[in-house]
Amino acid sequence: MTKVEYPSEVSALILELKRLPGIGPRSAERVALHLLQDPRASPLELAGALQACSEMVKACPLCGFFMGSSGCAVCREQGRDGSILCVVEQPTDVLPIERSGVFRGLYHCLGGKLSPLDDVRPEDLRIGELLQRVRETPGTEVILATSSDVEGEATANYLSEVLASVACQVTRLAQGLPAGGGLEFADELTLSRAFEGRR
Amino acid sequence: MTKVEYPSEVSALILELKRLPGIGPRSAERVALHLLQDPRASPLELAGALQACSEMVKACPLCGFFMGSSGCAVCREQGRDGSILCVVEQPTDVLPIERSGVFRGLYHCLGGKLSPLDDVRPEDLRIGELLQRVRETPGTEVILATSSDVEGEATANYLSEVLASVACQVTRLAQGLPAGGGLEFADELTLSRAFEGRR
Repeated sequence: MTKVEYPSEVSALILELKRLPGIGPRSAERVALHLLQDPRASPLELAGALQACSEMVKACPLCGFFMGSSGCAVCREQGRDGSILCVVEQPTDVLPIERSGVFRGLYHCLGGKLSPLDDVRPEDLRIGELLQRVRETPGTEVILATSSDVEGEATANYLSEVLASVACQVTRLAQGLPAGGGLEFADELTLSRAFEGRR
Repeated sequence: MTKVEYPSEVSALILELKRLPGIGPRSAERVALHLLQDPRASPLELAGALQACSEMVKACPLCGFFMGSSGCAVCREQGRDGSILCVVEQPTDVLPIERSGVFRGLYHCLGGKLSPLDDVRPEDLRIGELLQRVRETPGTEVILATSSDVEGEATANYLSEVLASVACQVTRLAQGLPAGGGLEFADELTLSRAFEGRR
């Protein structure tokens, strides 16, 4: 006696949905059934959006940010200050900075951070491209905005070393207490950096 | 000054993902970025699975269960007892019964339950098809397995009335305490039905 299961097409869809982050077996089944049954669901539009993303969205060859069919939204924008370059790990790091509105220069996405444990070495990151950009615009200010964890710090240190050979000014984002954060929520490392960077 | 946002293709994908049940704005963004960035992600396979489901998966014209390209897994199976018909609301109700292994007859999915508030009337459900199936197999036992809420009860009552005119035996799933459930967790209605149905 074989157990009756979903048709193979439905099982395949559930399997694919289960691979998405934050979607477990039960919600994968729920989402699949919604897509199959709910008259308001639009599985073909979702399929089309996925296809368009895979085919059209690439990394900008200059800065590494996402670029759709209409080009890189950062690099093509008029009025940005080309003499300041903000170095981030991932293209996803660009949007929080953009949404804050505090920075009006250009970006350079490394594509990750140095991590010997995960076998990410300098040649795996877009460091050569960074050096070339800085060389082409002498007097550039490079702001290192890698994350403040161990690998992010190591990446920033490595970058300031290799950038020392090029004519540019290198700065690092300040570290300290987050806005609105009380002392009781700050960990030791944050506190020690807040003390070090006091002014 | 315009804010830099994702390319339109990515925004469209996030919008479609946000429409799925249980996926909010933040997890839609997270899923979209995973599909774009993670080398293990397979957006095109997900798109293909969605397309295959939309195109190939239909309701079985006889029982209403999901049917892929290989036909209805229930109706085509050998050795099922065609003289017992289990009436459920949705095709999704078939699998829990199948997984329990307690029933080896055929199914009839109504496609919903009577609900005047949601404007679901008898002619919106597959009741005519049910009567025809029962007429074609005289002596059928019809098990009403609609849910035990108000609309499910009303649907079961309505079905027993219209089935009274056809030569068949109509039964309803027993209601009472769930297995392993202590009395302290049972609500009043469950308790009153457990008392009514005592044997």
